[in-house]
Amino acid sequence: MSTADLLVLNAAEVASCAGFSTRAAQGPDQAQLGLVPNGAVAISGDRILEVGPAAEVRRKYAVSDDKIIDADGGVVLPGFVDGHTHLVFAGDRAAEWEARMQGKPYLEILREGGGILNTVRATRQASFDDLLAQARTWLHRCLEHGTTTVEIKSGYGLDRDTEIRMLEVACALDKEEPLDVVATYLGGHVVPPEHTAQRSAYLDLIESTAAEIKAEKLAHFFDVFCEEEAFTLAETERLLNAARDLGFGLKLHAEQFTASGAAALGARLGITSIDHLEHIDDAGLEALAAAETTVAVLLPAVNFHLGLDESAPARKIIDAGVPVALATDFNPGSSFTPSIPMVIALACRLLKMTVAEAIIATTINAAHALSLGTETGSLEPGKRADLIVCDIPDHRWLGYAFGWNPVKTVIAGGERVVG
Amino acid sequence: MSTADLLVLNAAEVASCAGFSTRAAQGPDQAQLGLVPNGAVAISGDRILEVGPAAEVRRKYAVSDDKIIDADGGVVLPGFVDGHTHLVFAGDRAAEWEARMQGKPYLEILREGGGILNTVRATRQASFDDLLAQARTWLHRCLEHGTTTVEIKSGYGLDRDTEIRMLEVACALDKEEPLDVVATYLGGHVVPPEHTAQRSAYLDLIESTAAEIKAEKLAHFFDVFCEEEAFTLAETERLLNAARDLGFGLKLHAEQFTASGAAALGARLGITSIDHLEHIDDAGLEALAAAETTVAVLLPAVNFHLGLDESAPARKIIDAGVPVALATDFNPGSSFTPSIPMVIALACRLLKMTVAEAIIATTINAAHALSLGTETGSLEPGKRADLIVCDIPDHRWLGYAFGWNPVKTVIAGGERVVG
Repeated sequence: MSTADLLVLNAAEVASCAGFSTRAAQGPDQAQLGLVPNGAVAISGDRILEVGPAAEVRRKYAVSDDKIIDADGGVVLPGFVDGHTHLVFAGDRAAEWEARMQGKPYLEILREGGGILNTVRATRQASFDDLLAQARTWLHRCLEHGTTTVEIKSGYGLDRDTEIRMLEVACALDKEEPLDVVATYLGGHVVPPEHTAQRSAYLDLIESTAAEIKAEKLAHFFDVFCEEEAFTLAETERLLNAARDLGFGLKLHAEQFTASGAAALGARLGITSIDHLEHIDDAGLEALAAAETTVAVLLPAVNFHLGLDESAPARKIIDAGVPVALATDFNPGSSFTPSIPMVIALACRLLKMTVAEAIIATTINAAHALSLGTETGSLEPGKRADLIVCDIPDHRWLGYAFGWNPVKTVIAGGERVVG
Repeated sequence: MSTADLLVLNAAEVASCAGFSTRAAQGPDQAQLGLVPNGAVAISGDRILEVGPAAEVRRKYAVSDDKIIDADGGVVLPGFVDGHTHLVFAGDRAAEWEARMQGKPYLEILREGGGILNTVRATRQASFDDLLAQARTWLHRCLEHGTTTVEIKSGYGLDRDTEIRMLEVACALDKEEPLDVVATYLGGHVVPPEHTAQRSAYLDLIESTAAEIKAEKLAHFFDVFCEEEAFTLAETERLLNAARDLGFGLKLHAEQFTASGAAALGARLGITSIDHLEHIDDAGLEALAAAETTVAVLLPAVNFHLGLDESAPARKIIDAGVPVALATDFNPGSSFTPSIPMVIALACRLLKMTVAEAIIATTINAAHALSLGTETGSLEPGKRADLIVCDIPDHRWLGYAFGWNPVKTVIAGGERVVG
């Protein structure tokens, strides 16, 4: 008999999502869940020891009854990886959201000083402790919905001090909380009002702040919003090159409102993920497919939140062989949900992804969107023991049932932290 | 000092939804929430004693600390009334749902014996105890999401014994559980396969079963699905007249796929509610507006669940002066959500209702859709103490935030049953 610290038993099925640790799942592989009927998982410390049929696992490992987690006929999955959030912010935008639902144009809201500028104002005024307290509340909601790894972007400061404060909050949460938090510096979110007359000075500020952030190890990734109302393709290229030279992993918000050529740029620079892609064109798709290393992160909660009909062409992207991840894009302006199960339900309906594709897209492919494919996102020996038990009889219920939280138990880094 | 059994204190706001107990809110009134900032609620037994500013209520009523419910800066609302569900059933339809999402036509699924016939087969085979156990699980999920009154329809038996068994389950739940359950006999859901060659014999069976159900007091309402693939307008009229003669309250599933004239029929017969209305025409709308007593129950989760673009013309219906309610239509085929907060989020985005309209539509107007407007659905002295506390700073968050459950405390009939 070997020893284990925890055994998860009595699952209707375990979706291991195994086989894609070194390279994200693509094309038809993206629907391969590695299902183990009546499966079990053995855990030692913060690592997975084994995944297999319950009878075998039980025979092999001795544990006392208090170390057994009874899945009670539910479904066991890797903990969700939410690879795109703006979870640190102050204030809310409920009034503006309701006005938009009733037909008020966003540009009018912006002209009145609302929209993202509203959140920037509130976030600049907020203390570290206030930002931390509000972010912690939302992070707990993410965790309760099964997220064990979460990316958090800065980008509501747009000045040196506030951007750094936001990233310090993200790093504090990483230390305090059971989730793994990955921080991204998004100084390149939009150009703040005080710099619109002298954009290049703001680009300089982004670069100097990025150097400080790198020196203090406050962020792993660097992200830019490449779009007409944000940064041009040339500005984006300048910023990404500077960030690469500093040693950051690279991400892009791109092709959201227009096909800008950012996907081809990203593919050329070998960026880790490109996020949004509602308007990606065939040339961009071909460039991403040829690059093979960039994950497309789709965010269906955004257009749902804003009551818009359009969606990213998920089927085309998957058919082109580009690996797809899904994320909440949790933020107070355009996606006010902390729930990956909600995102899976939206992806099946709005993006016409299958439930299996959506599960891969929120586990192992999402881990690759954070360069964590060898560490988390699937249930395989040696990987971090991040897993969840859902109170559903069949993995398809993750898409089929919606508007409630099916997650009843969360294990993060080998610790049972929910349920 | 007066005495109270419970005081709900420390709310950011109490949305009393008061003023519409004798007649459902219509037109601009449908957005009148009766907000009390820093409000409080006093409860005695199963009744509301008083709703008012916290300072006043606290001065007036003496209670010990253990009788105080701290809303902790949240929002207090009437318990939700879910006026349209098919909560008693066996089996699930996850595989069929996923095939539909991937483009398989429903008529093809029906021809293969799937669709509603799948649920009818499973429900006929299920025992009373099995149906009760599964329904209880879902009922608890409704309650956790703030529903304190729920309508449950039969309609998956389509034979005497199973229809009665389903209603017996609904009545057992009403006795056992803290929610108020209102049962509806929906023998007129579709014509079962064994009767398609002799439809009039099935109509006779519905009528004779209805008489038994009335004698045994197993259902308050009688409902018919008036649609091409279900019952004709003439059949619907025959059934509604028979049910009215037996003393049932009347409901209709109508105008879902085609404008059939059912709304005008319903208005003429003074039915309590008409549900769906995705394709109601101007004549139908005028008839309902003139009748003034029929509540339009809209079900936005259905088209969302099925990935369809179309919606009921909610703004037109409200503007015409017809009172609007919202419900989940929870069922395994076309709306697999137990959550009224999810329905509110959908109504704001897909039906372009304001959050205030959606709250009225899930509280007092929904109570009127069950002829319970004087008993529940608003916070007014003498009404049943059905109320919830939501962990949100402002009632608009009920629509603005989505995909998580904001309900943290539920009081049903004066008893604290959740949180």
